[in-house]
Amino acid sequence: MKLIKLAAIAACVLSASVFANDPIIPVSPETKATTTTLRDKAINDNSAYQILKSLTTEVGARHPGTPGEKAGIEWGIKKLKALGFDKVYTEDVKMNGWVREVEKAEILVPSYQKMVITALGRSKSTPKGGLEADIVHFKNYAALEKAADNSLKGKIAFISNRMERLKNGGGYGPANIARSKGHELAAQKGAEALLIRSIGTDDHRNPHTGATNVAMGYTAVPAVALSNPDADQLVRLMEFGHTPKIRLNIQTKDLGPIVTKNVIGEITGRELPNEVVVIGGHLDSWDLGTGAVDDGAGVAIAMATGAFIKNNVTVNPRRTIRVILWGAEELGLIGARAYAKARQADGTIANHVIGSESDFGAGPVYGLQSSKNVSVNALHVVDTMAAIMGNLGVSRRGGDTSGGPDMIPLAALGVPALNLMQDGTDYFDLHHTPDDTFDKVNPEHMRQNLAVWTVFTYIAAEWPGSFK
Amino acid sequence: MKLIKLAAIAACVLSASVFANDPIIPVSPETKATTTTLRDKAINDNSAYQILKSLTTEVGARHPGTPGEKAGIEWGIKKLKALGFDKVYTEDVKMNGWVREVEKAEILVPSYQKMVITALGRSKSTPKGGLEADIVHFKNYAALEKAADNSLKGKIAFISNRMERLKNGGGYGPANIARSKGHELAAQKGAEALLIRSIGTDDHRNPHTGATNVAMGYTAVPAVALSNPDADQLVRLMEFGHTPKIRLNIQTKDLGPIVTKNVIGEITGRELPNEVVVIGGHLDSWDLGTGAVDDGAGVAIAMATGAFIKNNVTVNPRRTIRVILWGAEELGLIGARAYAKARQADGTIANHVIGSESDFGAGPVYGLQSSKNVSVNALHVVDTMAAIMGNLGVSRRGGDTSGGPDMIPLAALGVPALNLMQDGTDYFDLHHTPDDTFDKVNPEHMRQNLAVWTVFTYIAAEWPGSFK
Repeated sequence: MKLIKLAAIAACVLSASVFANDPIIPVSPETKATTTTLRDKAINDNSAYQILKSLTTEVGARHPGTPGEKAGIEWGIKKLKALGFDKVYTEDVKMNGWVREVEKAEILVPSYQKMVITALGRSKSTPKGGLEADIVHFKNYAALEKAADNSLKGKIAFISNRMERLKNGGGYGPANIARSKGHELAAQKGAEALLIRSIGTDDHRNPHTGATNVAMGYTAVPAVALSNPDADQLVRLMEFGHTPKIRLNIQTKDLGPIVTKNVIGEITGRELPNEVVVIGGHLDSWDLGTGAVDDGAGVAIAMATGAFIKNNVTVNPRRTIRVILWGAEELGLIGARAYAKARQADGTIANHVIGSESDFGAGPVYGLQSSKNVSVNALHVVDTMAAIMGNLGVSRRGGDTSGGPDMIPLAALGVPALNLMQDGTDYFDLHHTPDDTFDKVNPEHMRQNLAVWTVFTYIAAEWPGSFK
Repeated sequence: MKLIKLAAIAACVLSASVFANDPIIPVSPETKATTTTLRDKAINDNSAYQILKSLTTEVGARHPGTPGEKAGIEWGIKKLKALGFDKVYTEDVKMNGWVREVEKAEILVPSYQKMVITALGRSKSTPKGGLEADIVHFKNYAALEKAADNSLKGKIAFISNRMERLKNGGGYGPANIARSKGHELAAQKGAEALLIRSIGTDDHRNPHTGATNVAMGYTAVPAVALSNPDADQLVRLMEFGHTPKIRLNIQTKDLGPIVTKNVIGEITGRELPNEVVVIGGHLDSWDLGTGAVDDGAGVAIAMATGAFIKNNVTVNPRRTIRVILWGAEELGLIGARAYAKARQADGTIANHVIGSESDFGAGPVYGLQSSKNVSVNALHVVDTMAAIMGNLGVSRRGGDTSGGPDMIPLAALGVPALNLMQDGTDYFDLHHTPDDTFDKVNPEHMRQNLAVWTVFTYIAAEWPGSFK
């Protein structure tokens, strides 16, 4: 379905004639009026901020396979019920767990210095007690590619690339190959371990962890992120002419098969209960911080949006609003992939009318983007949403979108999506670090997110036409 | 001598008549001209920044009794010689060492969460394996004072006071009593341990260590600083109605008697070699960062100032410039006290014509303050210094000063001092944390400091009159 539509859009004269025969269903004046009223109330509503405060404070970090994740799932179920959702349930998802146990790195030569590091996701352990080796420096992944195979025997490969700070987070992808695939390349070159400068934009002694391209088992060599000041320290030492020798001790554990959950709350549609608008955030977090901007904020915004609509309209919207607190996003969209696969298997994928995930921090929304799965005949609805969001600082944007990481599997099955684009200028200062904590979140921004998400969600659930 | 002068100033009519008979010695046009030339060259000179880069990168942290301190002392001797100082020597100072070995804290109730903490200076250890206890919260030291003696048996006292961010660092003193004396008060109230919110202005997961009022042995109970986000997390948990139970494991070691050193470099005076102008910073640092703003910056500024003057005048200034890299400042001005005591004993204290220490970070200098030990007949010289510093953004300020922490023992013996007041707005974001690293330092600010310190030091060494 997606391919047919993309082809139709590409051949625009043809597509115009094809779609011209479909009916254009307007957003009714009543729906616009209700949406505007909801928006103006939501902008003064602190519930998203308060939900986030509770999650990050009373639960904390929520890494799959830890007591924190379990507490987070229990919190999600209890909170969705307390917020008045009509239906609350969970779905089990099988996966393999992994945890860090020891993380220690020291410079031994030219002078003894402790470094602040963290293991990347599914990093292999070093030998017990650690390994000692000289550093060989590569400015980026491409530079390491040029090294001869097996040329780094007895050495540690160090990739020092810097991530660029951009509002849309566009610096992340180009820098991140060092994190995701660097371990394989380091192994190919014969290195004992991989060190990378953290994929992040800050200058604090807080390293950025994150997934590698490994879903089970371990990375090819121990794979570690240095805090950015520590990485810069190694680079400077080399500029002074030293060859730093370090001791690295990483001990991690594969937990084997574990079960995570997608936690789901629904506001049942009054006319079309089987048609669902999917919104959400991911409930899991990395273990270092308390998962405030990644992704407690998204969880809180989605939960607050569903509850706010339910509690501020006289009757439920036409379609079901399904708030999904996705499980194990950080380790490879595990909950989202299982959800999409199950809906494909049972045929209910067709009932997913549109969706979006909030997973880019707690900054304000500034743009509204639609995916190519959205029919040209429904684009006027997105334009209407953007117009009503206009006085919240949001404007309509071009391009394509999956609608957020956990929407990728659904988008691949043709589910239309919107992207409520957040200002991520500071997001990668905190992302995957110990510093991702509640105090960094601005309550005004959370209110703005609630208002924007309410506009999108209410219209998507109330407008009677098809987004496909 | 100090008391007599203070009395004279207080009785101003009398003092005016007393001092009116003393000769007023002007700063010569030649001295002013040379100073201006030096200033305009120094503002483009990166040597202070480069020295700091070397110290923080090639040595790192310099905590008394550690290999880093030893490496720092060796670095200081070597660097002073390389910079062309006429005389380089060290003086041994006896003290008692203390180091941290294990620092771990976890919230057990209401949910398991790891906390980021650090032991305060000379903290006692907990029992091996740690202690578990509920938190009792006090908003500040005064609130803990009001608790009944022995009322906190089996509990951990937690003081959550916040330090105010001020340009002159004025928020430090009022907040710091929790750090310096809180352990004694907690013991008096029967508590098992003391937790404090870090004495700092940032919101990062980097705790601020620092000295307690204990010089030997250990604090009365284990004494620990939480990172500010962790302290705020405990406060929020209590606002949600929980009583946090924590496990605290602190293992520290008293190293017994150790020897630190003051490292000294001199530019020998051409006419009055026995008269010394003392400038410096402290060479020791806390162990968590690399001691960049505290106080590598001060060390680098003082070293660069002496070398810059030596290398940019045709003959040495009239008096000796003595650059002192003070030892063990952080643990109670230990090097400075020993230095002053020795000069009092051998009578050379009278040769210390004026002094100042740079120990308030790497921010730009904005004010010039003189101590009450400076004679009213010499104030015009300070005004001249300030005038020449004017186009560097420095203005003359009132009030009294010791001239920096390590000048306190000398000031108490009557040595005149100036305070080259730095903008410390951001200083307590980094002070005593892992985040005190070279990347935080602005090279432009280091050049400005070098220019300002050059003006002060050159005039103080060249002007033939007495500051006393």
